[in-house]
Amino acid sequence: MANITKKVSWSSRGDDSALTGEGTPLLNGTEIPKPSRKLSGSGSVFRIGRFSTVDLEDDITSEEDPIRGRPKEIPHNEKLLSLKYESLDYDNIENQLFLEEERRMSPMGFRCLEISRWVICGLIGILTGLIACFIDIMVEKLAGYKYQVIKENIEKFTEVGGLSISLILWAVLNCAFVLVGGIMVAFFEPIAAGSGIPQIKCYLNGVKIPRVVRLKTLVVKVIGVICSVAGGLAVGKEGPMIHSGAVVAAGVSQGRSTSLKRDFKMFEYFRRDTEKRDFVSAGAAAGVSAAFGAPVGGVLFSLEEGASFWNQMLTWRIFFASMISTFTLNFFLSIYHGKPGDLSNPGLINFGRFESDSVAYYYYEIPLFMCMGALGGLLGALFNSINYWLTIFRIRYVHRPCLQVIEALLVAAVTAAVSFTMIYFSNDCQPLGPEHNEEYPLQLFCADGEYNAMATAFFNTPERSVRSLFHNQPGSYNPMTLGLFTLTYFFLACWTYGLAVSAGVFIPSLLIGAAWGRLCGILLASFTPTSPIWADPGKYALIGAAAQLGGIVRMTLSLTVIMVEATGNVTYGLPIMLVLMIAKIVGDYFQEGLYDIHIKLQSVPFLHWEAPATSHWLTAREVMSSPVTCFNRIEKVGTIVDVLSNTSTNHNGFPVVVQVLDSDEPAKLCGLILRSQLIVLLKHKVFVELARSRLSQRKLQLKDFRDAYPRFPPIQSIHVSQDERECMMDLTEFMNPTPYTVPQDTSLPRVFKLFRALGLRHLVVADDVNRVIGLVTRKDLARYHLGKHGLEELQLAQT
Amino acid sequence: MANITKKVSWSSRGDDSALTGEGTPLLNGTEIPKPSRKLSGSGSVFRIGRFSTVDLEDDITSEEDPIRGRPKEIPHNEKLLSLKYESLDYDNIENQLFLEEERRMSPMGFRCLEISRWVICGLIGILTGLIACFIDIMVEKLAGYKYQVIKENIEKFTEVGGLSISLILWAVLNCAFVLVGGIMVAFFEPIAAGSGIPQIKCYLNGVKIPRVVRLKTLVVKVIGVICSVAGGLAVGKEGPMIHSGAVVAAGVSQGRSTSLKRDFKMFEYFRRDTEKRDFVSAGAAAGVSAAFGAPVGGVLFSLEEGASFWNQMLTWRIFFASMISTFTLNFFLSIYHGKPGDLSNPGLINFGRFESDSVAYYYYEIPLFMCMGALGGLLGALFNSINYWLTIFRIRYVHRPCLQVIEALLVAAVTAAVSFTMIYFSNDCQPLGPEHNEEYPLQLFCADGEYNAMATAFFNTPERSVRSLFHNQPGSYNPMTLGLFTLTYFFLACWTYGLAVSAGVFIPSLLIGAAWGRLCGILLASFTPTSPIWADPGKYALIGAAAQLGGIVRMTLSLTVIMVEATGNVTYGLPIMLVLMIAKIVGDYFQEGLYDIHIKLQSVPFLHWEAPATSHWLTAREVMSSPVTCFNRIEKVGTIVDVLSNTSTNHNGFPVVVQVLDSDEPAKLCGLILRSQLIVLLKHKVFVELARSRLSQRKLQLKDFRDAYPRFPPIQSIHVSQDERECMMDLTEFMNPTPYTVPQDTSLPRVFKLFRALGLRHLVVADDVNRVIGLVTRKDLARYHLGKHGLEELQLAQT
Repeated sequence: MANITKKVSWSSRGDDSALTGEGTPLLNGTEIPKPSRKLSGSGSVFRIGRFSTVDLEDDITSEEDPIRGRPKEIPHNEKLLSLKYESLDYDNIENQLFLEEERRMSPMGFRCLEISRWVICGLIGILTGLIACFIDIMVEKLAGYKYQVIKENIEKFTEVGGLSISLILWAVLNCAFVLVGGIMVAFFEPIAAGSGIPQIKCYLNGVKIPRVVRLKTLVVKVIGVICSVAGGLAVGKEGPMIHSGAVVAAGVSQGRSTSLKRDFKMFEYFRRDTEKRDFVSAGAAAGVSAAFGAPVGGVLFSLEEGASFWNQMLTWRIFFASMISTFTLNFFLSIYHGKPGDLSNPGLINFGRFESDSVAYYYYEIPLFMCMGALGGLLGALFNSINYWLTIFRIRYVHRPCLQVIEALLVAAVTAAVSFTMIYFSNDCQPLGPEHNEEYPLQLFCADGEYNAMATAFFNTPERSVRSLFHNQPGSYNPMTLGLFTLTYFFLACWTYGLAVSAGVFIPSLLIGAAWGRLCGILLASFTPTSPIWADPGKYALIGAAAQLGGIVRMTLSLTVIMVEATGNVTYGLPIMLVLMIAKIVGDYFQEGLYDIHIKLQSVPFLHWEAPATSHWLTAREVMSSPVTCFNRIEKVGTIVDVLSNTSTNHNGFPVVVQVLDSDEPAKLCGLILRSQLIVLLKHKVFVELARSRLSQRKLQLKDFRDAYPRFPPIQSIHVSQDERECMMDLTEFMNPTPYTVPQDTSLPRVFKLFRALGLRHLVVADDVNRVIGLVTRKDLARYHLGKHGLEELQLAQT
Repeated sequence: MANITKKVSWSSRGDDSALTGEGTPLLNGTEIPKPSRKLSGSGSVFRIGRFSTVDLEDDITSEEDPIRGRPKEIPHNEKLLSLKYESLDYDNIENQLFLEEERRMSPMGFRCLEISRWVICGLIGILTGLIACFIDIMVEKLAGYKYQVIKENIEKFTEVGGLSISLILWAVLNCAFVLVGGIMVAFFEPIAAGSGIPQIKCYLNGVKIPRVVRLKTLVVKVIGVICSVAGGLAVGKEGPMIHSGAVVAAGVSQGRSTSLKRDFKMFEYFRRDTEKRDFVSAGAAAGVSAAFGAPVGGVLFSLEEGASFWNQMLTWRIFFASMISTFTLNFFLSIYHGKPGDLSNPGLINFGRFESDSVAYYYYEIPLFMCMGALGGLLGALFNSINYWLTIFRIRYVHRPCLQVIEALLVAAVTAAVSFTMIYFSNDCQPLGPEHNEEYPLQLFCADGEYNAMATAFFNTPERSVRSLFHNQPGSYNPMTLGLFTLTYFFLACWTYGLAVSAGVFIPSLLIGAAWGRLCGILLASFTPTSPIWADPGKYALIGAAAQLGGIVRMTLSLTVIMVEATGNVTYGLPIMLVLMIAKIVGDYFQEGLYDIHIKLQSVPFLHWEAPATSHWLTAREVMSSPVTCFNRIEKVGTIVDVLSNTSTNHNGFPVVVQVLDSDEPAKLCGLILRSQLIVLLKHKVFVELARSRLSQRKLQLKDFRDAYPRFPPIQSIHVSQDERECMMDLTEFMNPTPYTVPQDTSLPRVFKLFRALGLRHLVVADDVNRVIGLVTRKDLARYHLGKHGLEELQLAQT
């Protein structure tokens, strides 16, 4: 099963990349799960780490370890933490090179850097807006063409008879689009599947997801999402925008493309994880902003998912990127729609204008809204549970790319068939008003001058369906239509999410919610036919949409703001917030949020905001990994190469210790060095002996590290001769001389707070004479979570 | 001059409170300014701290210190950092008592705590909304009554002649109101003066401003703001709402009132700085939300000013409080206005509805908006500069309460006189339409059926004036009227801010900006009479208002969102943001923001978001205070009492060290204990000897510390007999055993980041064998700032 997991996991392509030079799982610490770890605060024996270099014995023990420690059968997928995900280095490595560079820089230099950051954010906004614009126009063109062809066909065959030909045409057209999208995703870039929001959540959380911010991913994502929306699947094009924005940001901010092998020699200062992650936050925000016309919502999304330490200037830049992105999209779409300069129509999805007068709410409606919130939570939990089992099924049985494409085609065909059937058997005919908003009104078996109401919901892009549920006149739908639509679309959307196509879940959720919300509104109005205030079911459609979306994705603050911004009316703030809150509380009781489920199924070491409340009795001593592989400040090259080559440990950060000569004092911590730094040092052969012999040798600079970023070569690709193995390397200049440390009695919440607030990757645990006794990394902290029966500890696995 | 500063400073009443039992300046570290400190990274000699207890010699040196180190004359007010401000203890003291309590608590207990937090936030929202409602109704009643009386009087005397009597009546009524407000503020609670935003900024930043969140302050603030708005000063009632919300939060969350001597035995768990500050954030947000109908803006305000580490649940609670506050205000105001249940009119200030159709903007207007932003920045800088000199003048010469009241009366009279003169000499008559919005249309010398347009601006509460500038029909004002109004109101508002009355600067700024913005709109329309798009000057009034407000207060993200929410139209997001950004950039070039000026003039050790960019060459060694007074883990009571009683040092946190017996090894850091804890220990006589003799003695619990919070008695009030002085105290159980430490080579930005992200109060600097060599506190970090000529170091002073 571990094997299967590997096949369909986010980093499935990363498995062969260990050979090609990236994605190697380089987490530090022991990879041995400790099922027998005693979870008692007092009296637990901890192993004193070894402080010298690794010797042959280490190889033997680490070969034994897996056999001894790892269970033969992995009990359950979600109770595992994968060791294959690396952390981002959000903490600045303040080594001597860095400090020297900073000291040399003038105040003017810092100002220039700041200006570059603003320029990059502006570029991110513009490019994200352009991509959104491209997706929107392409979808509109393709879907318009498709619906036009089918509509003509249906009209032809309605009179003649033989509508099954129309059905086949519809199914074939859908399948054609989905085939293209599915092949792109399944064969070329599996990470581009889905909405990309779970992946971006993880990235912003500090987990390095392989290939997630590559140019290729972007291309596949964009084409994929156009195909799946045009292919009539129950999906939205909004979620993928967030991923697209993030990729744009990662690309622009680095001033080069590794895929295209082009280096523009720009923004070289920003080639490190700290800066890159900040820009990716801006990109994600710009994506949200373009998708929903919600710049503030975008900023809050980025903060909710990514912020550790709130930085005002950064937030302001993120906001700038968001604003520019909405503006760009708006500007180009206004030109496309032939109304240049009309900027009051932002976002890919637009809920239309809710005028305060027509849809004001009264305080006695609030309890009703809260009930709808609870219903949304229940339905959301049901959706998530079904999708959870479906995902498990997919992990087990649908892991080959061709199977994935076939499943996608099946869904496309079924969607078309179900839609057609629903429309066919519907007898909800509505008069076609003079200024009707229907894009493709299907007359079918209705009288002349009427159209089929079911077709408004099914025979349309989901965005348009949402809008007509919100804004169509009371009486545009009869309750039966809405009920049937909710039911079928619920299961279609649930089946669709998780397919190997690029697609978001926002719009389907909104659509389901809007349908049953409108149904609620109609029923309420029918109970109290005299009261005029319940006359507009659009208001209830909005509340239902919020409830359903909240019940599925469980985002809180940012979602409220996104919804408020998308409706363009601040008045709805309180009810939307209450509804989302209730939906979350009710939903959380049964099942996690959809994104969290998918993150958990991938065994990503995701850090939440705080340590579990009941974890005060755990201390750093119990949490940390030990023994720790340390290096001496002046270390033999051979030792370093051996440690780095040891595939069974794959440590990634090494405390550097110093042994006082002629003394039996223990070695003391004096710094921390990363695998990536050592690789660069080895590649440039920065050996003490060579420095002496070749005085003219160029001193290694920060630039050399930046040039190698982010795809550092694997240790296997670096040739070190037997003579060189005997040389010494002086790490003083390159190590981070002031790593954060904690005493071993520090409680887990305190360790967690420090780790999370500063975005650390390694936290050294030192004793009272400053000896290294352990190392805390992400997986050590992510392992503890509050289950139904108190604190639980996840197993670590090499999946 | 130092004396004078003290007189009018925020903590002026705090000076005598050292005797009455609180507010003692308890900052740790040396109080000696080090003007001769060598600012070089290498080779600077640092003093090794002493690790044993303080002996008599310490008393002598610390008496000598002030003479040796403190300059005789304080050179300039704003180049100083005051030592009298304490920090908040945002970092949890995880001592054994705390850990035991947490360990005893069940998951259910934690859930109850979480629910209490929500309940408190709900209460904060409701109470803040009610206070806003009360202020609004009172102001409307009183101002309405006043304007009615004056209007009748003016109408009477317009025909008869002798309008000077009306002028006198107006001035007398204004003065009467201001007299009440001024006396309340100047004599009873000077901290209630002004908008309170600088004080709340400081509090959220982590500085304990004495008396700022007291019930008395709230009462004075509320009455004061009603009086000053009703008294016709150029002030708003919005700023003080933020302060009011903060006080409400501090009160509610503690479940007791020290002023009223009532303890409700509720929420005892929250009686510590960490929790209190979180609730105060929520209160401030609720205040913003009530003031502007901007719940999201409120959350962002709190985050911008207060957040260190972003906590999702906390943010969500803050948002809840904000929402409830807007809702409450809305609900009660709708009842008051006779339209119960109409909730679409949020906030104290309401910009009215900007319909997208009527005031849409086009992209070619954006450069115009940006120019207006620059103008706003210039005018804002001018405003701030004038106010800065005025404040310096006030600090020097207007420091007695009675003088302050007289100045306030003078301003009130002058405001009335100037307004009257402007109205009197204005000849801008406008026809009184059938559905006119003017509350008090003054006919004066206009023809029948017309009213004086100047009176719309002057003879009105500022909120109404803003609204009419935004929404009145094109042509309601002639350019001359607007120009004159801008000019006079600018200087009136500038003079008014900083008076000893409770008053905000938001509305006056908006009013000034709206006036010149509308003027710009009219002028633009007159240049291009054919183009209809520039026909509506209300749009330009909005942009002008944003520019002027941004130019004065220089808030960024939160202000944009507040403005967008107050206009209720998301479309204006981008122009408002651009305008605020330009206004900030232009304004910052000349002068700081108004709030920052006032914070600086009070010499508050305010920590910005990041360390100055060019400070990488400074290390902890140069920044820290040393020597440090440490205690042994088992310490003699006499020593502790002596150290605490030493008024010349007034340290507030003491590292606890342990000396290994029978060894000449140096003493090692093993914890940190606070003055407040020691005071409680001494009060309860927790001595080793007594514990042995009285076995039945109740063990000290966290509750005892919470009961004493926040007004710990001064050491002078605790009697320790000569026998007891010989006893020993065991600090093990009470100290924080895992204080954060940094090595001495850590760069200033790194120290700063750790300190700021975790909201620390004390950061121990330790050497490589874990000896204490220094302590970094807030003033050590706040001292460095980037001036015009690179890095500058502020002097520390005991003012």
